[in-house]
Amino acid sequence: MRIALDAMGGDHAPEEIIAGALQAEPLNAAELVLVGDQEKLKNILGRLEGGQHLKVLHAPETVGMEETGAKAIRTKRETSLSVSMRLLAENRVDAMVSAGNSAAIVANARHLLGLIPGVRRPALAVPLPTPNGNALLLDVGAHAEASTVNLVQSAALAHVYLKVQTGMDQPRLGLINIGHEPVKGPKFVRRAFALLKRSRLHFIGNIEPHDLFSERVDALICDGFVGNVLLKLYEGLFGGFSDFVQTRFLDYQQERGGGQNTAAGYRTILQCQNTGGAPLLGVRKTVVVAHGRSRATAITDAINLACSLVNNKIYEMMAEELRNDSILHELKHLSSLMLLEKLKPRWGFA
Amino acid sequence: MRIALDAMGGDHAPEEIIAGALQAEPLNAAELVLVGDQEKLKNILGRLEGGQHLKVLHAPETVGMEETGAKAIRTKRETSLSVSMRLLAENRVDAMVSAGNSAAIVANARHLLGLIPGVRRPALAVPLPTPNGNALLLDVGAHAEASTVNLVQSAALAHVYLKVQTGMDQPRLGLINIGHEPVKGPKFVRRAFALLKRSRLHFIGNIEPHDLFSERVDALICDGFVGNVLLKLYEGLFGGFSDFVQTRFLDYQQERGGGQNTAAGYRTILQCQNTGGAPLLGVRKTVVVAHGRSRATAITDAINLACSLVNNKIYEMMAEELRNDSILHELKHLSSLMLLEKLKPRWGFA
Repeated sequence: MRIALDAMGGDHAPEEIIAGALQAEPLNAAELVLVGDQEKLKNILGRLEGGQHLKVLHAPETVGMEETGAKAIRTKRETSLSVSMRLLAENRVDAMVSAGNSAAIVANARHLLGLIPGVRRPALAVPLPTPNGNALLLDVGAHAEASTVNLVQSAALAHVYLKVQTGMDQPRLGLINIGHEPVKGPKFVRRAFALLKRSRLHFIGNIEPHDLFSERVDALICDGFVGNVLLKLYEGLFGGFSDFVQTRFLDYQQERGGGQNTAAGYRTILQCQNTGGAPLLGVRKTVVVAHGRSRATAITDAINLACSLVNNKIYEMMAEELRNDSILHELKHLSSLMLLEKLKPRWGFA
Repeated sequence: MRIALDAMGGDHAPEEIIAGALQAEPLNAAELVLVGDQEKLKNILGRLEGGQHLKVLHAPETVGMEETGAKAIRTKRETSLSVSMRLLAENRVDAMVSAGNSAAIVANARHLLGLIPGVRRPALAVPLPTPNGNALLLDVGAHAEASTVNLVQSAALAHVYLKVQTGMDQPRLGLINIGHEPVKGPKFVRRAFALLKRSRLHFIGNIEPHDLFSERVDALICDGFVGNVLLKLYEGLFGGFSDFVQTRFLDYQQERGGGQNTAAGYRTILQCQNTGGAPLLGVRKTVVVAHGRSRATAITDAINLACSLVNNKIYEMMAEELRNDSILHELKHLSSLMLLEKLKPRWGFA
């Protein structure tokens, strides 16, 4: 297996990306290709133990964090990102990992890899640790805005991903909202609620953020703006606590007796810090996006995630499942029906 | 001073509302008027010590949590909410407090009290405790959707509110977003960024949620959906921790030495649980909205907040400040200029 690594993407590139690659290399059988400024990379690699074994591929340009996705594709064709993506598109690697500008990653992936038929656009998914286990949160920032169709397609992507990845037959899907009632929230969310309720997905309704600590839900659907905000607040809150929770809270919970489950729950939450990569769902080939602020460990995690996705053929199985299952067609059909029903009384057919 | 209390609004109404009123009564000189089902209220009051002193005003109807604001005004005219709001409109009380359906509260307030001239719609503001002090978060749910104008008006409301309430001359305003760069986030947020940058408000730029734990910011501007999601995640995360943080974390921080500031910071955060009321900014008279899940203590806090707002003439001063300061006019003017600049090249004037 070969994995391309965008060595120039991220706040701490290329040093931390290279460090992450070196940590990952002995752990799994994947061959890594570092893509970026050859001279700079070779220079750093020369100084590090084991650095000589890593392959380097030259890419003269880089994408800045302030560029929009569309601009990055239009104006720069030889960035470390687009060269990595092209390697993947041409089947010269099996997956790619980047901690760079996520808008540019998404634009490049759509443009060079293409989407699974029927999918309108990709979504970034992150497992959010809760006391009741992980909940897959998506979209966490592939796009900043969403429509009803995007939300229900995210639900379908989550359904299929969890099905092929964990073997769950009917993952429990929730919609992030500001109340349980179907009338709450913005229009596109209310419509997504109505559509998901009629679909055969296992939709458990609106989830308010504080419910995460009591209800069990396998996937949380929201637009990329809200998802990213949620994720970053989560990180901020747990970041502030993490040093001491490790040492005290877990003992405290166990002292109290019967608190072992809670302790285990929070222990899981704290590992949040270590989940380094988010799969970009809906594209044809395996793309893993790491946080822009990723340090070496997060990069290693992202590489390991990419390996496991390739080993278990998750992306191929998702595409096959979506083709056979026809859930996307069903959602489209339901959406048309809902529109017709709304028009009926207006046209006098009621 | 007299304050009307919507005794039938909220998940634990009327019992917890009454309990909250009884706790508040001896603390401040305000005369409370409980509005709701007379028989039910008198029945409960009869059983409670001191209950005989509370005034009760009959209102035969109640607003359900699943009703939309528009529907609540159209179909029900004698709810505990609208009767309370009418008392305020007719100057028979100085403020009103409700823990009911917030969409209905906002609709009633707009309809019966009216807005400060120039304000397009009201915003709900909550002080969010952070390690660096409180940050006023708005909107937290007066409306589920927002435009650029709504966002920048929220910034102006926050500016004026903090100015008259705390005496700050130039409160630091931040925009909740998913990156620091001006190109990040949905279109209406990007436009609000551009507009606020040009205004004379003290706009410090985009704030990512994890920044709350490092940067000092006095007010955080976002749409009501995102604000409500943020607030509820905050509550959920701290709710799960609160019992033990009270007992252990604060000692731990102090043991470590030099941790007193951090300890004080988190102590403030934990008081989050006790901030019971959010002022509805932009309307002509003092309206305080309490959380739907409020228990007695939160109701007492909301009543105390209403008293302090009335005592310090905050709403009158806000209206006066907005009239004299002409910040709303300036923002409108800047918005028109930005539109013209966008059209210039299209019309060949560039």
